[in-house]
Order: sequence, then structure tokens, then C-alpha cells
Amino acid sequence: MERSTAAVLGLGLIGGSLAFRLRNKGYRVIGYDISEERTQTAFHLGAISEGRSSPAEAARDSDIVFIAAPVGAIVPIIEDIIPHTRPGAIVTDVGSVKRPIMEKVEALRPPFTFIGGHPMAGSEQGGIEAADPNLFENAVYVLTPMGEDAAKEESFRQLAGLIESDLGATVMAMEAKVHDEVVAAVSHLPHIVAAALVHALGRTAERTPAALALAAGGFRDITRIASSNPHMWRDISLSNSNQLLELIDHMIDSLSIFRNYITDNDPQGVEEFFSRAKKFRDSLPTLQSL
Amino acid sequence: MERSTAAVLGLGLIGGSLAFRLRNKGYRVIGYDISEERTQTAFHLGAISEGRSSPAEAARDSDIVFIAAPVGAIVPIIEDIIPHTRPGAIVTDVGSVKRPIMEKVEALRPPFTFIGGHPMAGSEQGGIEAADPNLFENAVYVLTPMGEDAAKEESFRQLAGLIESDLGATVMAMEAKVHDEVVAAVSHLPHIVAAALVHALGRTAERTPAALALAAGGFRDITRIASSNPHMWRDISLSNSNQLLELIDHMIDSLSIFRNYITDNDPQGVEEFFSRAKKFRDSLPTLQSL
Repeated sequence: MERSTAAVLGLGLIGGSLAFRLRNKGYRVIGYDISEERTQTAFHLGAISEGRSSPAEAARDSDIVFIAAPVGAIVPIIEDIIPHTRPGAIVTDVGSVKRPIMEKVEALRPPFTFIGGHPMAGSEQGGIEAADPNLFENAVYVLTPMGEDAAKEESFRQLAGLIESDLGATVMAMEAKVHDEVVAAVSHLPHIVAAALVHALGRTAERTPAALALAAGGFRDITRIASSNPHMWRDISLSNSNQLLELIDHMIDSLSIFRNYITDNDPQGVEEFFSRAKKFRDSLPTLQSL
Repeated sequence: MERSTAAVLGLGLIGGSLAFRLRNKGYRVIGYDISEERTQTAFHLGAISEGRSSPAEAARDSDIVFIAAPVGAIVPIIEDIIPHTRPGAIVTDVGSVKRPIMEKVEALRPPFTFIGGHPMAGSEQGGIEAADPNLFENAVYVLTPMGEDAAKEESFRQLAGLIESDLGATVMAMEAKVHDEVVAAVSHLPHIVAAALVHALGRTAERTPAALALAAGGFRDITRIASSNPHMWRDISLSNSNQLLELIDHMIDSLSIFRNYITDNDPQGVEEFFSRAKKFRDSLPTLQSL
């Protein structure tokens, strides 16, 4: 089956980048955003072939539907489009949390194949203006399949093929639960911690404004992700709270252990804390080596 | 007074970069490293004009002495060179912590002018092999003057002039105590937190090895500084422990507050946590705007 018409619901950084790329690859791209103005911007920028004013209208004529909305808005959009989407269509999302979405969609028993997706790409710069058709190039793109039958497996193969050959990303199939556990550690916890680092600087700067000048270099780089969209990260944190609680506790424990090392003036403990981290980080694969 | 001979004691990333840059600017650069092999490498790479086998021998003929050793090694080197350094010489260091060094050096009553220094530049890549003569270009370079008399003020002007015109950095004069408070927030705490994030990932990866593949992208970037030299960061953490304790406690408090928001399922609290951080980070000056 040739899938040549794609709907992109949500035209922010991820949706906009998807739309641009798919258009470049020759798809007819039908776009929708909750902000009509943004749909029009996407059209004027050339990211979409046509704009529609509701998710249902955008999904109706499409063989494949990408839902690129904040995590909290994905399931309501799926409920919206169920009566209007072709039974043979593939519907996928790009949410950073997968298990709660997969469970809710499964309960809806949609007539189409739903496959959870999460492209591990992005930027703290949001919006269609920052969209980049090469955003997914060489990125890991997680897919979480639902159920197991021949038709679904074929849909999965088609979506994975599109992602690899048209978006240029590397597909990793993963159970939704495993995905959520892993992204809590590699992405969600770092975002919370970056925000907490910024709060700590803010407190220092209240007393000592010189802190601002010294924060202009490395600190800005390190805390880049603290400038991400707060609304998006609110949804993500609340949707993945179980995984996050355990990691936050582990983080607090680590910091308490380090605190003891320095109050006890324990050079070995401190050095070991840093050297274990260095050793493990240096052993991480790079994207090129995957 | 024309200062044309510089000693660089310690030929790692910072010392090597200083040496390269000063040679490029026409200085005679006399180098020393605790590893004789590294001194020879620096000579063969062209970073230094001459190598010497002790700090005293390197300092003897120099008008200006840069001590680019780990924080814990700086005062012992100063004790070493006191009997051998020209009275008119300027001695400076590049340690990431200033107050303990300034206090100890003051107690030694050296015959030369000592000015504390901290170039806010670096990389998790250590060693002379990573040295880069442009490392200080547009970086902030903190100087912490000692005492106040006309001769010292003149030395300060000369060193600041060299740093700005020859190294291309921006000098900020700062009290040692203020410096230590500020770098604890902008640099030291982030290093500890990055290591703790890596530990948290390590724990997840033990259970779920897929975490390693998903850590290949953004997580590696975010935790780059966790690959810094553990020995160096041991010294820094222990030397600045008072400032760090307060910040670690604040960090633990922040994480606990966030933890409560997600256990209470408090969307407003979570969003506010992220949006306050975003607002403050977005307001930070950039290096270009300083």
C-alpha cells in the first residue's frame, strides 16, 4: 500500500519539522494546529500542502496521521479523529511518554492501527519557526507497537520504513513501559535537574548579582534544556510520575552521599563519585556508533 | 616594565593553551610539568620555548608566572618558588577556587605580587593534546587582587592588560569570597549534579540496558561535564565545600518540592517550577552581551 497523504496534527517544532520533511519527500501534507494562525504560518512557510481547521478534517483524507501535540492533548485528539479516520490508516504520535497513551488508546479500540512514537530529537527552541526538515536525521526514533496481528505488523513495517527512509532516523522498537522508564532517566530527570540548577543560581544571584556575569558562559550551555516549554514539561512530568519519583529519590540520595563526603572531608569518596560517573559516561555509545 | 618571559607551571589543557597563546604572542615561555614526559610533549608541540625540571627553575628567569596546576597543588608550588622568584615578578594561578588559596598565599608573605586568577574556560577534554591557543578568546577571566598598594595596583593593571590584549579574554575583578560563592553555583554544583545524573542512568541501565542506546544523543550532551577530570574536581569540591553544602541542600530542597508536586498531581506547581526556571535562564546575559 502506497501511503502518500500524511496529516500532521500539531505544528510546533516536531510537527513542523515532520511536515517540512514529508513535503520535501513528495508527500501531500495536510496540517492542523489548535492555533489557526500557526496553521496559516505553516502553510505560508511551505511546511504543509493544505491546512484544515479540525483534527478530524485533517485526518479524514490521510493514509498516515502524525499527532505532534503536547502529551496531555494526544488522547483527546485520537478520540476526536476516531469516527473520521480511514480504517486502513496508520495513526502515530510523538509524545515523550508512551505507556499512559498506549493504555488509553487501547481502551478506545480504534478502527485504525495506532503505533506509539517518540523521535528523540528536539530543541529548547519551540515553534514552527524553529522547524527543521533535518531534525530527525540520525536521531533515534522509538516506536511502541500495539498488539500483535499480521495487519498490525505490516503497518509497523510501513511506518518504520517511512521513518528510516524518509525521515532519516533510526527506529528502535520498544515496549511502552520500558520506553517510559528509560526516558525518565535520559531525558525527564535531566530537565527537572536543569530547572533546579537554575533555581539555585537564582538564589545565589539575589545575594550576589556578579553571579549573572559568570553564568553567561558554561552555565548557560549546561542548563540549555531549562529553557524548554514549561507546559510541555508539566504534561510529561505528570504523565511519567511513577518512573520519575524513583529517579528523583535516587538523585536526592546521590547528592546526600556526596554531601557527606565533603562534610567528612573524604577525598577518596569524592574522587570515586566523580570517577565512577566519568567512567560510565565515557562508555556510553555515541549516536554514530549505534 | 616590559614582561616578556612567562613561566607556565602545569601543562595540561589550561597551562598548555596559555603557553601556546603566549608563544604566539611573542613571549619566551618556560614550561614545567610534574610529568617530565608532558613537559617534553609541550616542547615538541611548540607550546613552550624551553622546559625545566622544577617549578623553581622555571620561575627563576620569568617576569610573570602562571600556575596551572590542580587546586590542591597550587600552594605547595608557591612555597617552592618563593625563594627563587624575582621580587618584581607577578605570580598568578588559574585555580577554580580562590579564597583558600588567597588566604594561604597571604600568610606566606611572598616577595612577589600574587594575583589570583580563574579563566572561565575549559573543556572536559584535559591534557596538552587538547590545548588551544584560542581557548580564552572572549571568555570571562576572573582576577582576585591581594592587598592594596600602588605597586600591587600597577601589577594588577599589567596582568589584566596581558589577559585582555594577549589572551583575548574579558577581565572581571572580584573578591575571592564572592568568586567562590558564584562559581559554586555556576560551575561546581553543575559538575556534581551531572555526575549524579550519570549515576541515576547507570542504575536504570543495570535493569534496562536499552537505556544505553537512548542515552546516546541528548543525554551525552547534557552530561558532558561529568567526563571531567575526577582528581581535579575532588580538589575543587573539597576546597569549596562551605559554599557547596548550602547549594547542595538547596538542590535537594528543590527536588523534594518538585517531588511533592508530582505526588500531589499539582499541574500548577509543576508548570511554575519549569516556567520560573525558563524565565530566569532566558534572562541570563550571553558572553557576547557582557
